[in-house]
Amino acid sequence: MLNDYNTTGHPRVLDAILNAAGRRFSGYGTDEETAEAAGLVRRLIACPDADVHFLPGGTQTNLTAISAFLRPHEAVISPASSHIYVHETGAIEAAGHKIVTFLTPDGKADAASVRALAEGHDNEHMVKPKLLFISQASELGTVYTRAEMAALREVCDEHGLYLYIDGARIANALASSSCDFTFEYIAEVSDAFYIGGTKNGMLFGEALVIVNPLLKADFRYLMKQRGGLIAKGFLLGIQFRTLLEDGLYLELARHANSMAERLREGLRAAGISLFVNNDANQVFLFAPAALLSRLENRVLFEHWGPVDEAGTPIRFVTSWATTAAEVEEVLKLF
Amino acid sequence: MLNDYNTTGHPRVLDAILNAAGRRFSGYGTDEETAEAAGLVRRLIACPDADVHFLPGGTQTNLTAISAFLRPHEAVISPASSHIYVHETGAIEAAGHKIVTFLTPDGKADAASVRALAEGHDNEHMVKPKLLFISQASELGTVYTRAEMAALREVCDEHGLYLYIDGARIANALASSSCDFTFEYIAEVSDAFYIGGTKNGMLFGEALVIVNPLLKADFRYLMKQRGGLIAKGFLLGIQFRTLLEDGLYLELARHANSMAERLREGLRAAGISLFVNNDANQVFLFAPAALLSRLENRVLFEHWGPVDEAGTPIRFVTSWATTAAEVEEVLKLF
Amino acid sequence: MLNDYNTTGHPRVLDAILNAAGRRFSGYGTDEETAEAAGLVRRLIACPDADVHFLPGGTQTNLTAISAFLRPHEAVISPASSHIYVHETGAIEAAGHKIVTFLTPDGKADAASVRALAEGHDNEHMVKPKLLFISQASELGTVYTRAEMAALREVCDEHGLYLYIDGARIANALASSSCDFTFEYIAEVSDAFYIGGTKNGMLFGEALVIVNPLLKADFRYLMKQRGGLIAKGFLLGIQFRTLLEDGLYLELARHANSMAERLREGLRAAGISLFVNNDANQVFLFAPAALLSRLENRVLFEHWGPVDEAGTPIRFVTSWATTAAEVEEVLKLF
Amino acid sequence: MLNDYNTTGHPRVLDAILNAAGRRFSGYGTDEETAEAAGLVRRLIACPDADVHFLPGGTQTNLTAISAFLRPHEAVISPASSHIYVHETGAIEAAGHKIVTFLTPDGKADAASVRALAEGHDNEHMVKPKLLFISQASELGTVYTRAEMAALREVCDEHGLYLYIDGARIANALASSSCDFTFEYIAEVSDAFYIGGTKNGMLFGEALVIVNPLLKADFRYLMKQRGGLIAKGFLLGIQFRTLLEDGLYLELARHANSMAERLREGLRAAGISLFVNNDANQVFLFAPAALLSRLENRVLFEHWGPVDEAGTPIRFVTSWATTAAEVEEVLKLF
Repeated sequence: MLNDYNTTGHPRVLDAILNAAGRRFSGYGTDEETAEAAGLVRRLIACPDADVHFLPGGTQTNLTAISAFLRPHEAVISPASSHIYVHETGAIEAAGHKIVTFLTPDGKADAASVRALAEGHDNEHMVKPKLLFISQASELGTVYTRAEMAALREVCDEHGLYLYIDGARIANALASSSCDFTFEYIAEVSDAFYIGGTKNGMLFGEALVIVNPLLKADFRYLMKQRGGLIAKGFLLGIQFRTLLEDGLYLELARHANSMAERLREGLRAAGISLFVNNDANQVFLFAPAALLSRLENRVLFEHWGPVDEAGTPIRFVTSWATTAAEVEEVLKLF
Repeated sequence: MLNDYNTTGHPRVLDAILNAAGRRFSGYGTDEETAEAAGLVRRLIACPDADVHFLPGGTQTNLTAISAFLRPHEAVISPASSHIYVHETGAIEAAGHKIVTFLTPDGKADAASVRALAEGHDNEHMVKPKLLFISQASELGTVYTRAEMAALREVCDEHGLYLYIDGARIANALASSSCDFTFEYIAEVSDAFYIGGTKNGMLFGEALVIVNPLLKADFRYLMKQRGGLIAKGFLLGIQFRTLLEDGLYLELARHANSMAERLREGLRAAGISLFVNNDANQVFLFAPAALLSRLENRVLFEHWGPVDEAGTPIRFVTSWATTAAEVEEVLKLF
Repeated sequence: MLNDYNTTGHPRVLDAILNAAGRRFSGYGTDEETAEAAGLVRRLIACPDADVHFLPGGTQTNLTAISAFLRPHEAVISPASSHIYVHETGAIEAAGHKIVTFLTPDGKADAASVRALAEGHDNEHMVKPKLLFISQASELGTVYTRAEMAALREVCDEHGLYLYIDGARIANALASSSCDFTFEYIAEVSDAFYIGGTKNGMLFGEALVIVNPLLKADFRYLMKQRGGLIAKGFLLGIQFRTLLEDGLYLELARHANSMAERLREGLRAAGISLFVNNDANQVFLFAPAALLSRLENRVLFEHWGPVDEAGTPIRFVTSWATTAAEVEEVLKLF
Repeated sequence: MLNDYNTTGHPRVLDAILNAAGRRFSGYGTDEETAEAAGLVRRLIACPDADVHFLPGGTQTNLTAISAFLRPHEAVISPASSHIYVHETGAIEAAGHKIVTFLTPDGKADAASVRALAEGHDNEHMVKPKLLFISQASELGTVYTRAEMAALREVCDEHGLYLYIDGARIANALASSSCDFTFEYIAEVSDAFYIGGTKNGMLFGEALVIVNPLLKADFRYLMKQRGGLIAKGFLLGIQFRTLLEDGLYLELARHANSMAERLREGLRAAGISLFVNNDANQVFLFAPAALLSRLENRVLFEHWGPVDEAGTPIRFVTSWATTAAEVEEVLKLF
């Protein structure tokens, strides 16, 4: 339970690719499968005018989108724990843009912090914040409520910021028990967002949705320039179509979340305290040294901070492929 | 016969992916399948010290490698017909590097042209050429001989240039009837090159080989930063292992080339003159207006230059998936 | 007569700086001298709404302006002899933009070549030309006529290109005997241009004029980011005010041009043929080997191409500081 | 007393420029004045092998040097209050490099914070810290002791970091009463640093010193590419020669510091508490609302943080041009 990208793809996704053997497709996402998948996305979010583009991975999607949307002096605001700030090897800065950040207890941006940064950057000797980046679910597995997103939209409107949502785990957010919003709302509240495929059943692939008409122009040029317009784009179309045409996408996320919930329950029953309170597919706990050595070599997990004498924070992640038996095995170690 | 990336993947490649269902892999290419595929590459080129990295596509590979190898004022020399100069939407320039070019009749770089450019850039008001980019086979399907590559190596050594080979169609070069070199020689003559997978049986993926030790440091950082370090890297490992473990890779290219040869023979028999003389998997002819309208809607091909009253240059490409029957169908149109 | 930047500044410019001793100025060009100089520029070009920014040098101005105006996939069209393509060490590419070029006999862009390039770049696998860069006078000292500029404007309008004019030697163009246009016309025909100070009497400095309202936003941010917003911006204001307030600017250029004309006449009288026909402040001739060795160490000039057995092309440049006596001295060597 | 760049230049600097009228210089810093100034710098720092380059401004110098020294995935570590992080409009990020920061009470980097950041960045999903940026004196006017710099050098050596010192106000550091190091030591402890001219008597200009031989190659290419190789480079040579040939440089800084000291003494006598304890040429105090309104329109100063009900932090800066009378005038307002 190291992460949610440790298996190939869901059987139905693989079947769909197999079934396409023998067919010929036009290149670079100009094929019919891609068109159909884009149509499914538009229906899903009830946004018939959205532009939909399929890219091979998350870092690729974030860097291509953000560098397409911003002028050179424009900057991103994000929580200090955001993926683009910490774990994408400076991809956004390599494309020329500063990220200005604020600390959060739970990985979620709050309107007051965003407002303070936007107001504090008020002259040409500083970068100009222009895009708010959030992840839904966040890097700590927490889920923004509808009201929280609305408040962020409001501060974005006040300061002329685009709201961009990294949806690598948007399915887990939508499938979480506390979710009080819809896929349509994501499109309504944001200027652009992406729907993650890699972590929810696909071999690889993410669907970027551009809602704001001002951000649409020439996007395929940028995809090509950044290396994200793959030759066999139809592979992304086939996979997304499979996930979206009859609800498989959210079904897989519900399964992942339920496995995480079972794990959380078991841990709590074992007296383990979780240092993040969330209900999506990530589980964070603090492992004292003795526990840590018991877990090692028996289950895969990720270190989530520095090891010290007392122990270390660690993370488990569940996915569509996690089984109840696996969860039980892990719980036995506690 | 529009291109060599219009089908999914070779059945054995797909089988290998299917067979991996149920297995768990570590992420980002740190898995055993990837390690094994890298080992196969090293054996294939008889270069046990080479670094091998797997990336999702060709533009991605070129831009990641070249921008990793060069300092900001260093430039690329390439033929004016090269893929990076014409058809990658300025990806190399977007990473900060100028490409200086020369015209060629056949898509192949010649030592004299490279030398002239290297010598002509002799002070700090101009960029400093540092890398020679060639494609083997070239964008016109022509294949460099061993002597031609040796001559380029010599001029590179004279002027401190790296020699980088885009091998999107290196299999077709190696499988061509005129080929007088080996895979080992490619590694011997170059500083870095890539072995194309997307156009020769894989769903997606290229294998970058770094031979020059000076160019190896921290390459995975650059892959991540440019968006080319995919989460499920094991998919690339599985596919390359399948192609390389028992000779399938060159077998597929031999088939593609033989289909192109059959097409060329049929065209010549029909009195059609080919404007590029080559023996890999691309076929270039000039189509007068009448022929052009006869071909359209009956067979897929690519325009290879402007249409004028007399007609237009066009390109057919064969692949591992092209059948003899398809070739016959096309020839009937002439 | 090596170039037009080999002396300090015109005495009146130096006086103006001296006279400012003891005064205190606000920083970064927010002072009154700068405001006054900007006003003089606006009156000079009869364009009350233009934005005027003062930058320290030509390469700085070109790279800041062009990278401010373009999105990452947008490219520059320019003659292959243009300064930004050859002699600015890839500054535009380092800012991420490809320059696509065409050959010219005389350093001047022609509408047909621009149109061909604009039309040839028609899909997302290629860069998108968006800005035409020309130099007035050109790098070969030739001067565009009003009709030539109008024709370029027309092709720019057809293809949605900005027209940007590098005016490092715009004073020499305006002061040339063949000039059939005004300073106002430069502002009318272009989207942005710069008025060169460094080569025409100033210690350093150029005045960038942005005419097109779409290109104005946040330009000072870009100046700061690229290092071109100097702390003591008032120095640029003081200098430009001195040159522009009573016609000194064009007077200096007329002098430079007349010295070049005298040199050209003397050379022709000596039977020397000039390989560029122009009437601004640059003089190009072909120096056979014997002449070359006679000139060397006696007069400063610039090589303008490779030396071969027959000789080499060379360039003389005159400036506001060139004297008739100097010209006579040079002519004695022929 | 708004800042230290609000006047032209020191009279002797202006005289030197005036005296150069009539002379002809070769371009782009290849002249003898520049060579002589570089020699003076080398003697000053007792480092005969150092490379010395003259650039027009501070942001330009920082961005050119840092982007020349780093590969794309390499990052800068600096205090969160550093000029490059806050007040250069993302110039470093625009050149592709992330800056990772830590908070400091006094604007000075400490070894423990640097070590923690270096150790925390330990894999290819994060940037690789490679250069420590500090300002001497710091942005808060504080001065690093020799021991503090030695400790930073040590942590840099442990983690393979370059130590780069922004010396916009290095003269004020060296002239401060608490200074326990020499100019030689700056060269000994760092890999590269710059000696500020703009804020200490010059019209404009900074001298970059590259001590580490690994960082020297091709630096003039980078200067040209970033727009920092000015045509009339001899102007920088003339000015630096004047400041350095007989000790004027430090003399001016001693004057500036003594004026600041007089101001600090007067403020303390008036019961005003200074919120930064330093002895160079910056003075920081907290101005309650009543004081603030009394100061406004009577003396120039800079806001150093947000205004709130209680008041606002403000900054005075003295320079070579500040007079004792001016200081007295300011003190009368308290």
